[in-house]
Amino acid sequence: MPKLDLTRIDRRGGSGYPGKLAATMQGRSSQRLGPAGGLTQFGANLVRLEPGAMSSLRHYHMEQDEFVMVTEGTCTLVDDSGEHAMQPGDCAAFPAGDPNGHHLINKSDAPAAFLVVGTHTPQETAYYSDLDMMVKTDAGGSRFTRKDGSPLTAAQIGDDQ
Amino acid sequence: MPKLDLTRIDRRGGSGYPGKLAATMQGRSSQRLGPAGGLTQFGANLVRLEPGAMSSLRHYHMEQDEFVMVTEGTCTLVDDSGEHAMQPGDCAAFPAGDPNGHHLINKSDAPAAFLVVGTHTPQETAYYSDLDMMVKTDAGGSRFTRKDGSPLTAAQIGDDQ
Repeated sequence: MPKLDLTRIDRRGGSGYPGKLAATMQGRSSQRLGPAGGLTQFGANLVRLEPGAMSSLRHYHMEQDEFVMVTEGTCTLVDDSGEHAMQPGDCAAFPAGDPNGHHLINKSDAPAAFLVVGTHTPQETAYYSDLDMMVKTDAGGSRFTRKDGSPLTAAQIGDDQ
Repeated sequence: MPKLDLTRIDRRGGSGYPGKLAATMQGRSSQRLGPAGGLTQFGANLVRLEPGAMSSLRHYHMEQDEFVMVTEGTCTLVDDSGEHAMQPGDCAAFPAGDPNGHHLINKSDAPAAFLVVGTHTPQETAYYSDLDMMVKTDAGGSRFTRKDGSPLTAAQIGDDQ
């Protein structure tokens, strides 16, 4: 039925980031509401951030529009222009191709949460603002490289990969 | 900047429905957050319903996924299976082509609001569940007809059109 039972939708932690970068996602978990509701054209994830956690490494998308609404607690939006506190009901929009890297950090001492919507596209490229890293995603999966396409360095991903 | 100032985004009432059907949208108003944030791939509207108001006539989309999250008050989701109360944080998903007509009604005595996201597509057809009416939308605008494509009847749209 269209109304979603959020208590029955898996909450996943972890990270797809390579090597030691995966640890930066500690305290972040997400429920994928879109597929739970049968949607295929865009994703709608309900993301929970424990104190100190971040939504992602700061990045921007080349192909996919992105929209967020904070639903609980206080999130700090970090983008090229600085830090912006966001309370429940506050929204932000990130048009595809706008090279203003962004992420949300929970700098408070209470849990925070937000809804994030992003278009599904056959291919995607995202660039990370604070690292020499990009990711290309298609039906075959995601490939993380340096921005010139060469392999990530040992210094970037550590000894655990 | 990505964070949206909701106090600066126009709130629009009114309706595109033909003739007397437009009056059914009284008490509904909406802010178009997507274009305000430069998004083109999907719409993100913050809709306010005064007591007694409804989101739309009950309908379903053939081409566009739709997702809602209630943000304030209590909305009643009406679909083919009946009525479902939705509180802030409750979500519902409506995949393109699923012929389960739906709308939200504010049956409470306080204002209610919800966020609705819908894909932008070059063409769209939507069918109205409780009327012999459909609408086809493309770059040229929207055309409301009976479900067989013939003009709406005077009984449907009244004397004011």
